[in-house]
Amino acid sequence: MKVAFNRKDLLSIRELAAEEILTILDTVESFKQISTRDIKKVPTLRGKTVINLFFEASTRTRTSFEIAAKRMSADSINISASNSSVSKGETLIDTARNLEAMAPDAIVIRHPSAGVPQQLSGMVGASIINAGDGAHEHPTQALLDAYTIRERKGSLDGLQVAIIGDISHSRVARSNTHLLTKLGCHVRIAGPRTLIPPDYEKLAGDSEGSLTVCDHIDDAISGSDVVMMLRIQRERMNEAFFPSIKEYSIQYGLTLKRLALAAPDCIVLHPGPVNRGVEISSEVVDSSRSLILDQVANGVAVRMAILFLLVERNVA
Amino acid sequence: MKVAFNRKDLLSIRELAAEEILTILDTVESFKQISTRDIKKVPTLRGKTVINLFFEASTRTRTSFEIAAKRMSADSINISASNSSVSKGETLIDTARNLEAMAPDAIVIRHPSAGVPQQLSGMVGASIINAGDGAHEHPTQALLDAYTIRERKGSLDGLQVAIIGDISHSRVARSNTHLLTKLGCHVRIAGPRTLIPPDYEKLAGDSEGSLTVCDHIDDAISGSDVVMMLRIQRERMNEAFFPSIKEYSIQYGLTLKRLALAAPDCIVLHPGPVNRGVEISSEVVDSSRSLILDQVANGVAVRMAILFLLVERNVA
Amino acid sequence: MKVAFNRKDLLSIRELAAEEILTILDTVESFKQISTRDIKKVPTLRGKTVINLFFEASTRTRTSFEIAAKRMSADSINISASNSSVSKGETLIDTARNLEAMAPDAIVIRHPSAGVPQQLSGMVGASIINAGDGAHEHPTQALLDAYTIRERKGSLDGLQVAIIGDISHSRVARSNTHLLTKLGCHVRIAGPRTLIPPDYEKLAGDSEGSLTVCDHIDDAISGSDVVMMLRIQRERMNEAFFPSIKEYSIQYGLTLKRLALAAPDCIVLHPGPVNRGVEISSEVVDSSRSLILDQVANGVAVRMAILFLLVERNVA
Repeated sequence: MKVAFNRKDLLSIRELAAEEILTILDTVESFKQISTRDIKKVPTLRGKTVINLFFEASTRTRTSFEIAAKRMSADSINISASNSSVSKGETLIDTARNLEAMAPDAIVIRHPSAGVPQQLSGMVGASIINAGDGAHEHPTQALLDAYTIRERKGSLDGLQVAIIGDISHSRVARSNTHLLTKLGCHVRIAGPRTLIPPDYEKLAGDSEGSLTVCDHIDDAISGSDVVMMLRIQRERMNEAFFPSIKEYSIQYGLTLKRLALAAPDCIVLHPGPVNRGVEISSEVVDSSRSLILDQVANGVAVRMAILFLLVERNVA
Repeated sequence: MKVAFNRKDLLSIRELAAEEILTILDTVESFKQISTRDIKKVPTLRGKTVINLFFEASTRTRTSFEIAAKRMSADSINISASNSSVSKGETLIDTARNLEAMAPDAIVIRHPSAGVPQQLSGMVGASIINAGDGAHEHPTQALLDAYTIRERKGSLDGLQVAIIGDISHSRVARSNTHLLTKLGCHVRIAGPRTLIPPDYEKLAGDSEGSLTVCDHIDDAISGSDVVMMLRIQRERMNEAFFPSIKEYSIQYGLTLKRLALAAPDCIVLHPGPVNRGVEISSEVVDSSRSLILDQVANGVAVRMAILFLLVERNVA
Repeated sequence: MKVAFNRKDLLSIRELAAEEILTILDTVESFKQISTRDIKKVPTLRGKTVINLFFEASTRTRTSFEIAAKRMSADSINISASNSSVSKGETLIDTARNLEAMAPDAIVIRHPSAGVPQQLSGMVGASIINAGDGAHEHPTQALLDAYTIRERKGSLDGLQVAIIGDISHSRVARSNTHLLTKLGCHVRIAGPRTLIPPDYEKLAGDSEGSLTVCDHIDDAISGSDVVMMLRIQRERMNEAFFPSIKEYSIQYGLTLKRLALAAPDCIVLHPGPVNRGVEISSEVVDSSRSLILDQVANGVAVRMAILFLLVERNVA
């Protein structure tokens, strides 16, 4: 039995019950087709104000939220950190309270520090949507990934999912691990040992045993229904977590050959932007196995659904 | 008896008659509740174009104007100096004429040089709204301050208002001094001697005697109905107008102790962003005396009223 | 007889037949008056998404497209290169495919490299509008120039048009040369020899003989019906194509004296932003001969017409 979704904020996947996640995914269904219409616009959020408050640059995520808001007829306001009052010495909390005073219905926030969206949520009446906070969570990414998997596979229950790359620094890995284990997937993790937190298995929580850290990428991929590659952040190279991009690519890059170890109908996800030839080969990106562009398309629908569920709840 | 408001531009408070200011404040009334509605949108400015032309960064003011325009259904266009043609050697006048050719109804301009909005006003048919020009004026700030005071106190007439800080460099102080003395307040000024212009009392104009420069902050605050703190601009520190932030804070910062000198129901305003612990203590910011967030909320309503009065006049 | 306009993209003037250009100009007619109305808004593109993807800063062109889209009720999304995924190492093609996945109807692109819009056009289903690609083409500029000339002169056929300046680096010159020779103008080119490509006459294509490179600016201007001045890009000075700005101004700047050589009713165009006193004197800019601001006004109408023709075609 599904429960209704009745939250003010979307801060993390960790805090969501499996039923809530399923409610969100079901809601996405009805929004997805709007973007395929001749007139891609519904009046659902007319007269609502959605602020995109980005302390890290992200064309992709900001554009996705902006398009989602506009297709629902909301007023969308972009604020980027470079020209924000924060650079004038204002505390984050004062920034948030000031925005709140302008009566927004939702604030979409991306911030380099983990926990910032959580902090704000108690201080403002507007819905807070976490669009990525440090290495903590990126819940809308995990939701769009789950929707994309379910769309192809019918259900997430019982699937083998491999997540490969720099796990330590990845909010995408963290949100996905929470979501996938909650919905009955078995998750296998692989990556450089220095880039996997020592107690990562504990993330599975009640779903103990559904999360395995593998010694080798091939172990993670073998028989997988889904392979989720993480983006390698070149700036980490300076921190010497792994010797070179070339080395990384050889040891952890997804090639067609490696993908052949997975289940025959295995699908490939990547949160983008991809580094072709580094964590994933061009052949894999462009193959029919890759659902990378489906992820982007579903991202708009997921954000429409989230805006709808949070903002309309506020109103009722 | 109130006169109708019939101007093309809002360039300064100085040029406004008391009756015009009151007309604006009365107009704000009807716009304020729009932002409290479930559907925060009226069709008043549908099909109008409002350009925000910002030569200085200001998230707060730009966002306030953008939200105001959008809630009235205007098309809002943001232009920031960093990527403007001005950086390609175009004169300001040519920039303005070019924008004018695109048929905007209003141009909201912020510029580091005093007098720029005035200059533009004669050259373009669109309404010019001064969103801050150098150390000259910031009329919408003074209007939202006045509205906030009147909302709490019922009327401005006869109120004692202290304005504290760097008066010389403050367009907020200047616009407020004009407005408050025109509407019957007695204004008391205090701040470092090096940061108060020698002939500041003359600003009161016809309302001579209603403006006093005090030797000490405590003299200005004693018995005040309103204390208006100015933001200290840290970048001025380099110019050595005062020895250190700490020293400034001790001598001119507003603490609860200092505030106890004011009238029992004294309210505190600050144009933001605040430097907690510098010009104002955190306790004061967060106290029930502080109307700082009311100012921000009223800012949106004031800008809606101004856009309405100027643009609709153009049309008639 | 005119043919209908039935293209997905606007990539260059070169690829357009004269009949297609005339169809565009005729379509502009009906959009021009929208910007003169009290309510400057039509529902034509309601529910359509137009992305402005700018890899070079351009307030003027971006603002013109944004206003055009909004006056037609489209959702307009701005992306500038500085904060785009491209800076994260993503290929341009992946950027384009990702945007495409969000289901835009048109992507307006400006890019420093020639040919980029062409490249994208084959890869995405959205209409691609070239808003300037390197030194290649800037088709909407040529169309607004043509519209401005026709508006004043009635027809382009048989007109003498001088184009003066840095021809080599000018996409404006290139697009205009194609358009004007296709529509029966005789084009005369002048500028520093180092800044005119050796085989420029070949651009005229089938209209051979309708394009002349002149040795001296006065030869180009004599008897002209239209003088089109190009913007001198000060950054080129470093490359030493001409000795100094002052020298350039003397040899190639348009003054009233020089303009006296042209036909008595000669009109002057400039794509802006103008460098007063460099390629064109202030007297000429401000004279009744100058149609520079008409160009800007017509720019909005031309972009409305282009968006309409391309996007509505996609739908049908």
